[in-house]
Amino acid sequence: MATSTQTMSQTQQWHDIAQQIRVDSIRATTEAGSGHPTSSMSAADLAAVLIAGHLRCDFSAPGRPNNDHLILSKGHASPLLYAIFKAVGAISDQELLSLRKLGSRLEGHPTPALPWVDVATGSLGQGLPIGVGIALAGKRLEQASYRVWVILGDSEMAEGSIWEAMGRASDFGLDNLVAILDVNRLGQRGPTALGWNTAAYVARARSFGWQAIEIDGHDLAAIDAAYAQAESADGQPTMIVAKTIKGKGASLVADKEDWHGKAMSREQADAAIQELGGLRDLRVEVSPPPDGKDGRARFEPQAGSPALPSYELGSKMATRQAYGQALTAVGAVRPDVVAIDAEVGNSTFSELFQKAYPERYFQAYIAEQQMVAMAVGMSVRGFVPYAATFAAFFARAYDFIRMAAISRANIRLCGSHAGVSIGEDGPSQMGLEDLAMFRAVAGSTVLYPCDAGQTARLVADMADRSGIVYLRTTRAATPVIYGPGESFPIGGSKVLRRSGNDRVAIVAAGITVHEALAAHAELAKQDIAARVIDAYSVKPIDVETLRAAALEAPGGIVVVEDHWPEGGLGSAVLEALADGPAPPPRVRLLGVSKLPGSGTPAELMDDCGISARHIVEAARSLAKP
Amino acid sequence: MATSTQTMSQTQQWHDIAQQIRVDSIRATTEAGSGHPTSSMSAADLAAVLIAGHLRCDFSAPGRPNNDHLILSKGHASPLLYAIFKAVGAISDQELLSLRKLGSRLEGHPTPALPWVDVATGSLGQGLPIGVGIALAGKRLEQASYRVWVILGDSEMAEGSIWEAMGRASDFGLDNLVAILDVNRLGQRGPTALGWNTAAYVARARSFGWQAIEIDGHDLAAIDAAYAQAESADGQPTMIVAKTIKGKGASLVADKEDWHGKAMSREQADAAIQELGGLRDLRVEVSPPPDGKDGRARFEPQAGSPALPSYELGSKMATRQAYGQALTAVGAVRPDVVAIDAEVGNSTFSELFQKAYPERYFQAYIAEQQMVAMAVGMSVRGFVPYAATFAAFFARAYDFIRMAAISRANIRLCGSHAGVSIGEDGPSQMGLEDLAMFRAVAGSTVLYPCDAGQTARLVADMADRSGIVYLRTTRAATPVIYGPGESFPIGGSKVLRRSGNDRVAIVAAGITVHEALAAHAELAKQDIAARVIDAYSVKPIDVETLRAAALEAPGGIVVVEDHWPEGGLGSAVLEALADGPAPPPRVRLLGVSKLPGSGTPAELMDDCGISARHIVEAARSLAKP
Repeated sequence: MATSTQTMSQTQQWHDIAQQIRVDSIRATTEAGSGHPTSSMSAADLAAVLIAGHLRCDFSAPGRPNNDHLILSKGHASPLLYAIFKAVGAISDQELLSLRKLGSRLEGHPTPALPWVDVATGSLGQGLPIGVGIALAGKRLEQASYRVWVILGDSEMAEGSIWEAMGRASDFGLDNLVAILDVNRLGQRGPTALGWNTAAYVARARSFGWQAIEIDGHDLAAIDAAYAQAESADGQPTMIVAKTIKGKGASLVADKEDWHGKAMSREQADAAIQELGGLRDLRVEVSPPPDGKDGRARFEPQAGSPALPSYELGSKMATRQAYGQALTAVGAVRPDVVAIDAEVGNSTFSELFQKAYPERYFQAYIAEQQMVAMAVGMSVRGFVPYAATFAAFFARAYDFIRMAAISRANIRLCGSHAGVSIGEDGPSQMGLEDLAMFRAVAGSTVLYPCDAGQTARLVADMADRSGIVYLRTTRAATPVIYGPGESFPIGGSKVLRRSGNDRVAIVAAGITVHEALAAHAELAKQDIAARVIDAYSVKPIDVETLRAAALEAPGGIVVVEDHWPEGGLGSAVLEALADGPAPPPRVRLLGVSKLPGSGTPAELMDDCGISARHIVEAARSLAKP
Repeated sequence: MATSTQTMSQTQQWHDIAQQIRVDSIRATTEAGSGHPTSSMSAADLAAVLIAGHLRCDFSAPGRPNNDHLILSKGHASPLLYAIFKAVGAISDQELLSLRKLGSRLEGHPTPALPWVDVATGSLGQGLPIGVGIALAGKRLEQASYRVWVILGDSEMAEGSIWEAMGRASDFGLDNLVAILDVNRLGQRGPTALGWNTAAYVARARSFGWQAIEIDGHDLAAIDAAYAQAESADGQPTMIVAKTIKGKGASLVADKEDWHGKAMSREQADAAIQELGGLRDLRVEVSPPPDGKDGRARFEPQAGSPALPSYELGSKMATRQAYGQALTAVGAVRPDVVAIDAEVGNSTFSELFQKAYPERYFQAYIAEQQMVAMAVGMSVRGFVPYAATFAAFFARAYDFIRMAAISRANIRLCGSHAGVSIGEDGPSQMGLEDLAMFRAVAGSTVLYPCDAGQTARLVADMADRSGIVYLRTTRAATPVIYGPGESFPIGGSKVLRRSGNDRVAIVAAGITVHEALAAHAELAKQDIAARVIDAYSVKPIDVETLRAAALEAPGGIVVVEDHWPEGGLGSAVLEALADGPAPPPRVRLLGVSKLPGSGTPAELMDDCGISARHIVEAARSLAKP
């Protein structure tokens, strides 16, 4: 322990830093004319003690392997984070005042436009789940010394995703994870459900297996002691439950209900800054991380391509099974590949990877948001995560996927059991909106293979693709239609049937490719030549091949997909052809036309309008001269 | 208390019913060749005591107002539910054996195809949140005597949505809600995170403010006592944490890991049925609900139309504010209208409704899944819920929305702060995928008004629209362009500018209507006549008006939207024109072309390619002969 004099001067230093953070939060938001000063001010003491006494980070080298991670889960308090960055010398005062302006790295909510920001926050309840992923990588993969500090707001404790994270963090014994809960009592539109009932937060955290420490979030010594206790945690994550005052330090706004997300006027700001002791320009020397080797070094990819499984032409194999087999093959030469499950690994066939590399397999249980968040966290640490569940259940994690794109995360997601072709389980288990959902994600890639070998190649190629990469697989075993020598570049397609006198073209993907081939055969019997295109790359789609089909098949194009008619493959084809060099062709969309029930796969595909029979009918109608 | 003899015979009766439920679960799944017998068998004792001793429901009159609600949150255990329905005489043995067949009401997972099923389940973690909504209606609106019994699986306790529900249920003091947690230890692919650690579930439930009762889920007297204790709860919801054995009663499958979601063979089934005491055909007389008036009667809509707000032409008003004003007006004549918030009521303007009708306003806090679930639960009871949050944050609840469509729920959702036009807050707060997301929902309606009066009319019309109805609103104040006499039928559109020699048509909605009008004026200066269409009804879209534009504007169509280019308004227009009587027109899609940062609304709309300048450029290019 420090002597009394030392403690006093240290306390004074912390206090001054905290006041500077408050002042800078006010200055930046007043300059911007919007933003969240009061939500920043409540956590300023927590932040000051953290950076001055506990965080270990070389801000001059954001990529340094053992740097601690600091995540602002309550992303609306971005001025707090930016004021920290100024205090540690990472950004200038001038840049601080560029907050919320076009082109500034200091956006309204933090994004990795700044190199010290791991992930975008601002959709509440996401920072902690992602922090679990980062801490998990440090603990289980890298054996690294870094800690993950997550600053949480009390309002976001209402989000279920927090409790998914609470459960997993304790399952995994993440004693390198510290959650700092800023209980400032006031949400956007008034008091939170629990107000200042910090005891309730403590009880909940403990019941989920965490070490919980209750403090006054403005008692600097108590904060310091709590961090020290968190640092000595053994086998448990720690939550520091800090009672704070929103807008602390400025009487105009302190503990006031109507000051959420509002900037002060210049006059108000001047008075508040004076009350806070005026401008300061303190610079905090943050402790560097301990030296040590990069725990990721042993995960470096090896030379050479994976020995992908091959499948005999004409045999049958489910693409979901090929996913698991291919992922296992990729894992053999890519130690940086990790797999994440949401308790359905025996359905998605992730379990094959688990059997081969149990140490690189992580169980999120039935918590799809946490599954995606773990993938994002692993991506932050440079790993190559593949996460799989039923296609339908990615809908549960859509907000995390949306935010992952803003985070510039590189994650690979596989949705199995797509479409009505799953059969008897019924609509709750059928992914029928996943193509629309994933296409509408910034910079995403959407793949939908129809056979096992194609799946294997795409699974391998996904490893090096950046952004959000989605692969859709099918429950049923489907025929292998491609030989082992074929390649399937992302952005490409395969013309499976073609003649010099095609009347129509049929564009399909996944399960409907097989229906399209059957329709082709039937149409041939009726002397209607049809081109068949396997559009396995739904986004980006193969515009050139589609344009050629539009020119060369004068009747038009039938698109058939095991998906709602809106937003999926049909939309992708229409977008590709809407504005090309030639006028757009006529396109008939066959998607799932009614709310399905249970039935056999064949019954349901026929009942919902996407079987070969329906394709034949549509093609015949278009082919009429 | 019953005498010993009575107790014995009662226990025997319960036992026999439970065994029948187990046998019927096996029979139905073996006949189907798939399904979940073992997950049904673990809860059979819990179910038997419930129906024979505690549930109050007139199965012959599923609409009877005071009937208890029984929700199978672990929807994969549907054979349990169907065996209950047989035992109470609601369905025949013959129908029981139609499980999972095309056209049967007994789908793989329960849906309201059966009149005793309130909502579809099968996406785990949804039954309890919806149960909270139903219990809330009973407690706070109807003052009804019914109870809500929810049977949960232990695997689904990993879903965050459960903990959103746990929080809200205790906030609201829902002592009419009983959660029956079937802790059978085994998930789909092995043990759950907590296994048989029933004490942990109890601690968590209590920390969230619930009464929790720990029992052996096969001890019939203990089950009975627990239900009785739940029934006498005062001010707290109850969770009964029941330790059970998956596959209980059949040694082949009991507590075995590899028997999740598998039907037995005929031979296996025969042996198991024998072990369970053979076939039975017991009929349980379920207690009817107490008499009492229908608590919903006082919520009957009044005669007359709402006195909607009107707005002066040329004035400015945000559509989000008009939403709140119109909803308040609708609430005056529609006592059945309720509003639900996710802690942003001062942003969505739901708070105006709250001020007028606090008793019909429900706070979900920042828990969007729970917000939608409460709306679904209110819909089950016949109320007309409107739930609002930022458009971006509906992505958090997409799986609940998807399932709500399968549940045939009638809910109205309003997403505010759509698009880059929100400005400084940055991409985490911008709904840019919501149109794609909501269009890809079975039977949905998607509306996107551009002015306050149009918003008000649509808000009123939403009340009588069935299914999932989504309204997208804008943050900024926008000009009022329609006079008070206009009508805006769902499925319609407005042609705002038209001439006899239009070269191009511009299709816009919401914020981009105003950009399109500015572009029209600029194009007119350049002697290019452009038609401008306000496509406020994105789904269903006005096909006839679009077709007329395609014919009458030979250069083609520009579609402009504040949304990613995929799956939104542009896709809707393309789908409408893909296969009409005339060849499809050329269509140029202007959507948000890059990942936005912060900036002013005008800066961002221009930076992202959707401002008037970009429309002019696109229209000029198309207009070239």
